[in-house]
Amino acid sequence: MAVSVEVERLDRVGVCAPLGFRTGAAAAGVRGDGDEQRLDVALIYSEAPASAAGVFTRNAVKAAPVVISQLTLRRGTPIGAVVVNAGNANACTGAQGFRDALLMCATAGDALGLDPWQVLVCSTGVIGRPMPMARVVGGITQAAALADSTGNDAARAIMTTDTRPKLAGAGFEVAGVRYSVGGIAKGAGMIHPDMATLLAFMTTDAPVSAAALHTILTGASDETFNCVTVDGDTSPNDAVLLLANGAAGGPSFDDDPVALAGLDAAVCAVSESLAEQLVADAEGAERYFRVDVTGAAERDHARVAARTVAASPLVKSAVHGADPNWGRIVAALGRSGATFALDRCRITIGGVTVFDRGAPTGGDLETVRAALRRPRVDVAVDLGAGDAHGHAWGCDLTPEYVHINADYTT
Amino acid sequence: MAVSVEVERLDRVGVCAPLGFRTGAAAAGVRGDGDEQRLDVALIYSEAPASAAGVFTRNAVKAAPVVISQLTLRRGTPIGAVVVNAGNANACTGAQGFRDALLMCATAGDALGLDPWQVLVCSTGVIGRPMPMARVVGGITQAAALADSTGNDAARAIMTTDTRPKLAGAGFEVAGVRYSVGGIAKGAGMIHPDMATLLAFMTTDAPVSAAALHTILTGASDETFNCVTVDGDTSPNDAVLLLANGAAGGPSFDDDPVALAGLDAAVCAVSESLAEQLVADAEGAERYFRVDVTGAAERDHARVAARTVAASPLVKSAVHGADPNWGRIVAALGRSGATFALDRCRITIGGVTVFDRGAPTGGDLETVRAALRRPRVDVAVDLGAGDAHGHAWGCDLTPEYVHINADYTT
Repeated sequence: MAVSVEVERLDRVGVCAPLGFRTGAAAAGVRGDGDEQRLDVALIYSEAPASAAGVFTRNAVKAAPVVISQLTLRRGTPIGAVVVNAGNANACTGAQGFRDALLMCATAGDALGLDPWQVLVCSTGVIGRPMPMARVVGGITQAAALADSTGNDAARAIMTTDTRPKLAGAGFEVAGVRYSVGGIAKGAGMIHPDMATLLAFMTTDAPVSAAALHTILTGASDETFNCVTVDGDTSPNDAVLLLANGAAGGPSFDDDPVALAGLDAAVCAVSESLAEQLVADAEGAERYFRVDVTGAAERDHARVAARTVAASPLVKSAVHGADPNWGRIVAALGRSGATFALDRCRITIGGVTVFDRGAPTGGDLETVRAALRRPRVDVAVDLGAGDAHGHAWGCDLTPEYVHINADYTT
Repeated sequence: MAVSVEVERLDRVGVCAPLGFRTGAAAAGVRGDGDEQRLDVALIYSEAPASAAGVFTRNAVKAAPVVISQLTLRRGTPIGAVVVNAGNANACTGAQGFRDALLMCATAGDALGLDPWQVLVCSTGVIGRPMPMARVVGGITQAAALADSTGNDAARAIMTTDTRPKLAGAGFEVAGVRYSVGGIAKGAGMIHPDMATLLAFMTTDAPVSAAALHTILTGASDETFNCVTVDGDTSPNDAVLLLANGAAGGPSFDDDPVALAGLDAAVCAVSESLAEQLVADAEGAERYFRVDVTGAAERDHARVAARTVAASPLVKSAVHGADPNWGRIVAALGRSGATFALDRCRITIGGVTVFDRGAPTGGDLETVRAALRRPRVDVAVDLGAGDAHGHAWGCDLTPEYVHINADYTT
């Protein structure tokens, strides 16, 4: 018996990569901006009832679809479909918002032969606008033809200010059976750990219970989606869903630690790819960066230090300008709340150590400047306070971010 | 005996408004950017030894001058002068930075006939660069001529990315004696509560102990400077200093609650004016806004809710675009940590209630849009959770902010 499972990353495949999943999409004009050709409703359908797990926004303001999906998952009964719309968040919409979210589930269920509580629902878009339900219902009905055989249209339909669809996949083998994990995501803005204006949907054909899925999804999200920050804002709509329909066959993974580890590694690989695609395509971003913090007193210190640096508007502006202004990284660490002593801290950007033990090293800033001009920048911080580590992804702050967000609703 | 003291706000006066204070300024070329005509060294001199109090950055990274000034104030001995430079923060500069800060005190002391520990020192500017001490020493010597009779040059000399000097004053009378408070400040960026890249210097000719001054300064800063956020970043250099030389005469305020209340009100008025000038002249800002939160369960909840809204990049972008996207305010409240129930929350922008008890009100968004186009915008939030209130000032996020900060060191 193998002690570990090899996971193969798959490019350009999404939620249809695992067996038994189909998708549909429609251009329903939810945005009401006249661009009626733009896909904005998606359905993900599982041919067999699927175990399901979800991770949701920790914002105290939760959109109606988040509340409804949380309640549905709490029932613990199998899930048959996920219905999603972009263009309207159905958040802060009062009691009508709850009725509209339930109607989305019922409409999708009717069209697919499912009960409403077998359908999870997500929305993303502008907050505080009533849902244009006539259009949404029409879009769901149309999407229920499930004509999107590749899953690419579904990946497009969930986009808001994203400039490109995000897909990822991974495969692994257990006892001679090939299993897949596929995923799609949307991101762009209002993104910060716990969580972001992100929606991510992952599927697998592995046979596994909802409880085991939940453990895997929580852990994977914590190391990937929850390490992405675009602007420090969090949304009422964030959700990551994982469906497992067992269509590839084989015995349940639940009592097989090696199989579970394989699924865990595959879900982590897909989550990491989607998270990295999210930050690379953040609103207005021209480059992104990863902050790795080592030497922290505790894991939480490492994580908060990495996030504070990745979220700092001044660090983000400096990255945008390829400006080797590492003092802003030090200042961000200093306000992060992590145990921190200036005289034990070391900062390395693009392989060049610029600050060590309380003073500048004289490291070559031209090399740093060149590193900051690449699409991906690596920042390493050693806090010198312990053995714990953590990481975060951030992106540069650009004038385009402001342009995009200065007139998002108008 | 009067039960309260009337405070008169004075426009366009600074630290020379109170009796017995003089200032000097010099263009020393600290920045090294070739602009040798730009004032960058300032001295504030008290003809009589002054009681002094300070409030400093809570960033764990503290610049050398902050540490030195904190130690000096801890001695409790009277202060004769404050020496300030702009263009270099003397932060993250190792042991040399401490020697340089001490040399600034000694140079100013020598020129003014004071001991080094009678001089407080502040720096602001780029982090992590060695101080050009030959220029700084030359500038201090030149500024010690105290030729700046109005205090306007000192207000200019402490500026970094500020576009205009900030001055404020207030006067009040106790037992027939006229007292004044004057102040200058610099702000612009890396500004967030507790505290900001702000330096503020206030003077008064009232007779009062350092202990009483400290109480007044702490309270005033908490309601003014600590309610300003520009970008969520905090700096290693922030300092607010208050000097009282008693030059106007009269008995000590220390045992006179009415006199202390008068001084408190005058210091608060000057601090508030300076704080508002700071946020109105924040980096790249075209307008600023005040968030008043009422109905909070606790005062800290009100404050954190107000700050979270004022600091939200998405709210700030919406204000920039005069976009009545109040959903972002709700989302920011939801992640603020304040006790919050959507169905009891009310949001008013520019006098128009846009959200009430969980749902949009249908309030006229064109009126909101017009309000958002004014230089100052008022946002009111009722959390419906209690009786506590708090406020914060923020500014719009503009492409210019990014431009300024993308190449600050280069």
